[in-house]
Amino acid sequence: MNPVIDCLMNHRSIRRFKPDLVDDETIEALLQAGIRAATAGNLQQYSLIVVDDPEVKGKLWRGARDTGAISIIAVVDIYRMKRWLELNDAPFYFSHVVNLLIAYWDAIIALHNTVVAAESMGLGAYYVGTVLSLDLGEMLGTPEYVFPAGLAWIGHPDESPELRPRLPLEAVVHRNGYQIPSDDDIRRFYREKDARWEQMPAERRESLKARGIHNFAQMRTVGHYTEEFIRGESEAILKHLEKAGFGLTEVPKGD
Amino acid sequence: MNPVIDCLMNHRSIRRFKPDLVDDETIEALLQAGIRAATAGNLQQYSLIVVDDPEVKGKLWRGARDTGAISIIAVVDIYRMKRWLELNDAPFYFSHVVNLLIAYWDAIIALHNTVVAAESMGLGAYYVGTVLSLDLGEMLGTPEYVFPAGLAWIGHPDESPELRPRLPLEAVVHRNGYQIPSDDDIRRFYREKDARWEQMPAERRESLKARGIHNFAQMRTVGHYTEEFIRGESEAILKHLEKAGFGLTEVPKGD
Repeated sequence: MNPVIDCLMNHRSIRRFKPDLVDDETIEALLQAGIRAATAGNLQQYSLIVVDDPEVKGKLWRGARDTGAISIIAVVDIYRMKRWLELNDAPFYFSHVVNLLIAYWDAIIALHNTVVAAESMGLGAYYVGTVLSLDLGEMLGTPEYVFPAGLAWIGHPDESPELRPRLPLEAVVHRNGYQIPSDDDIRRFYREKDARWEQMPAERRESLKARGIHNFAQMRTVGHYTEEFIRGESEAILKHLEKAGFGLTEVPKGD
Repeated sequence: MNPVIDCLMNHRSIRRFKPDLVDDETIEALLQAGIRAATAGNLQQYSLIVVDDPEVKGKLWRGARDTGAISIIAVVDIYRMKRWLELNDAPFYFSHVVNLLIAYWDAIIALHNTVVAAESMGLGAYYVGTVLSLDLGEMLGTPEYVFPAGLAWIGHPDESPELRPRLPLEAVVHRNGYQIPSDDDIRRFYREKDARWEQMPAERRESLKARGIHNFAQMRTVGHYTEEFIRGESEAILKHLEKAGFGLTEVPKGD
C-alpha cells in the first residue's frame, strides 16, 4: 500500500526485549512524533513520562526492573494548564467528565504516535492497561488533575510473533447507523475465536474445565478478567480520580 | 527520518474538503489499518461507524450535510462482546469504569490508525471532541454498552495550513517522575502562546476585552470552553453513559 499503512498493518505486541535500552536520541524522536498528534484546542492536556530507571521501572511492574524496555506513560495532565490559568487570572472548572475524556483522547493519541514511530524504526512495543489503576501520585509524584491514560513498554524486539487474528471487518464496522447483529451474525463473527477452544491441547482444556471454564468466550473474559479483578481495578481508578481532583459525576454550575 | 515518522510529524487538522467523497476502496483500506491497532485482550471492544449519507452527516453536524467529508465514529462497544458472552453462558460484569476506559483506549487507537492511514494517502482529517456528548442511541441506533469515543471527518483536503506550534518538549515530557514546574517554567513553556495576544489585530483584542477576556490563556480556555459549555457537555455525557448502562462510579461485587 504505502510504508505508513504497511507499518500500521504489521503491528504486533512485543513483550520480549533485547537487553540494550532504546537510546536517548531515538526516545526524543519518538516523543517529537508524539507531540505532533492532534490535540483538542491545541491545549495538549497531557504529559508523557519516560521511565528508564530500573528502580522506577520496577515500581511499575516488578518484572520490568531488569528488562531492556523503557516505558512511556501518557497521563491526562490538566495540572499544567491550571498553573497557566492561575498565572493569567483565569478561572478553573476543567476537572469534569468531558475534560477527563478529551484529555484522555489527547494523551492516548500522543502515546500511540510514539508507539507507531517506534515500530517504524524496528522497535517493538506493548500496551499495558493496568496502568489505569496505578497510584501515580505515590509512584511518580504526579500532582492534582493528573491521571494515567496509557502505558507502553518499548525496546528492541527479541521475538517476532505472528500477526494475531482480528474479528472480520464486518463485525466491527457499521455504516450510517448501528446494525444490530443476529445470533447467527455473532456466531459467524466469533467463529474463529470459538474454534480455538477445540484447537487447544486437551490437557489445557481439562484444567480450564476444572476451573468452571467451558469455552473460549469464558476463557478470554471471565477466565481472564475476573469479577474480583474488575472490581479492584475500578475501585482503584475511582479512588485515584477522586484524589486527583476529578469530579466524575459532578458538573460545574454553569455561567 | 522515515516515511512513517515524516507522516506523523506532518499532521495538520484539515477542515476544508473538496466535494468528492473518499471512495469505498480507500475507506476499506483505512478501516483495515484501524482494526490492526493493538487491542486489550484481543477483544476489540469498539466499533467504527462510517457515515457518508448526507442526511446522517447532517445529524452529526448540520454544516456537514453537503461537505465532501465522510465521518468515522469510533465507539466503545461492549455490546457485541456481551452478545457473544450470552451465547456462551458467561456472566457479564464489564460495564464499569475500567471497562469503559480500556475500551475507549482501544477505540481511539483504532480511529487514530484510520486517520494516520488517511493522511499517508494524502487525505486530510480532523477530530471533533463534541461527539462525546451526542446521543448516538437516538441518532445511529446504538444499543446498550455502546458509547462515543471519537469522531474524525476525512476527505480530500482543500486547504494546506501551516503546522501549528506545540509546547516545547520539556513542557510535556517528564523522566522517571513528574517534575513540578516553577512559575518561571510555566511562563517559559507558554511564552509563545502568551505572545499571541499582542500579535492579534488590535480590533480583535478590543472585542475580546469587551467580553472580559484579557490575555491568550483566558481566550483559549474560558473564552472558548465556557463553564456553561463544560456543564452541558458533562451532563449529556453522564446522561448517555447511564442510558447505555455504564455504572461510572459503581463497581461489581467481586467474586
